[in-house]
Amino acid sequence: MKRIAIDMDGVLADTTAQFLQYHERETGIRLAAAAIMGKTESIAFPNVYKWVNTEGFFRHLPVMENAQEVVQRLNERYEIFIVSAATEFPNSLIDKQAWLKEHFPFISWKNIVFCGSKTIIQADIMIDDHFKNLDYFKGETLLFTASHNAFADNGRHRRVDTWLEIEKILLI
Amino acid sequence: MKRIAIDMDGVLADTTAQFLQYHERETGIRLAAAAIMGKTESIAFPNVYKWVNTEGFFRHLPVMENAQEVVQRLNERYEIFIVSAATEFPNSLIDKQAWLKEHFPFISWKNIVFCGSKTIIQADIMIDDHFKNLDYFKGETLLFTASHNAFADNGRHRRVDTWLEIEKILLI
Repeated sequence: MKRIAIDMDGVLADTTAQFLQYHERETGIRLAAAAIMGKTESIAFPNVYKWVNTEGFFRHLPVMENAQEVVQRLNERYEIFIVSAATEFPNSLIDKQAWLKEHFPFISWKNIVFCGSKTIIQADIMIDDHFKNLDYFKGETLLFTASHNAFADNGRHRRVDTWLEIEKILLI
Repeated sequence: MKRIAIDMDGVLADTTAQFLQYHERETGIRLAAAAIMGKTESIAFPNVYKWVNTEGFFRHLPVMENAQEVVQRLNERYEIFIVSAATEFPNSLIDKQAWLKEHFPFISWKNIVFCGSKTIIQADIMIDDHFKNLDYFKGETLLFTASHNAFADNGRHRRVDTWLEIEKILLI
């Protein structure tokens, strides 16, 4: 059974939607998608480091569209590990565990990994929105589209825009 | 540079010493080392699952003798990752991070992994006190002696009793 390592932020969880909401709450300005496209998160949202270090930030993230049903179906055919680079934000670990338990209750604690560098991860397929994770991975890579990576391409990863697209690639 | 995956409980942290202390506090009886030798933790300490789910249990564990100085020296010659099967005990994550920060401040957040199953770990050497982790590992394995594994041997792992012994094997 092939193993898939699936990222949380920007892949299972719609961090961008929450960044936009926090930005609007703080400034009163609702940024258009086009305004942040191609920008790193810290350029698009200057207060992002404050937000992600706030208790509760990771507890209330919206789930990425179709992620639940597709991951559940993948879970029947693959060994799924949720792999999140979470140790940079010590406050996030409790929130992330509770969030997974709520939205992905079929994922066992045995299949959750909170790490820093993902170079230690051994799997067949990695789904992630960051080149820094995918570039060092030896297996098949799927780059999940996010505003920060929208215009980037190093020719090494297959881009996917939605979970339905991942379903087509891995399940059909 | 070779990568070493080092376990926490029973390897960096002296969990047995704390189990003995908790047992004495609850029962008034100080168990002798011989009384628990060769017994699984749940047989030797019937309340162990209650203890490890108590907030603070993992924050105040004594450091295993010589672990700090040997890991610091290993850190100059190897890529060190601390890998703890911690997601079974959601309350432990915050305590474990704080414990590492206090006793192993030279270990970056990038090199900490909290997981469930360690089958996802990719490294050259694994130091652990549990067969369930070492048996699935493809690289070199060092079985750190603990009361629960004292009489077990499946012929697949090199047994080490102390951190000074690990130093001799990996550094001299």
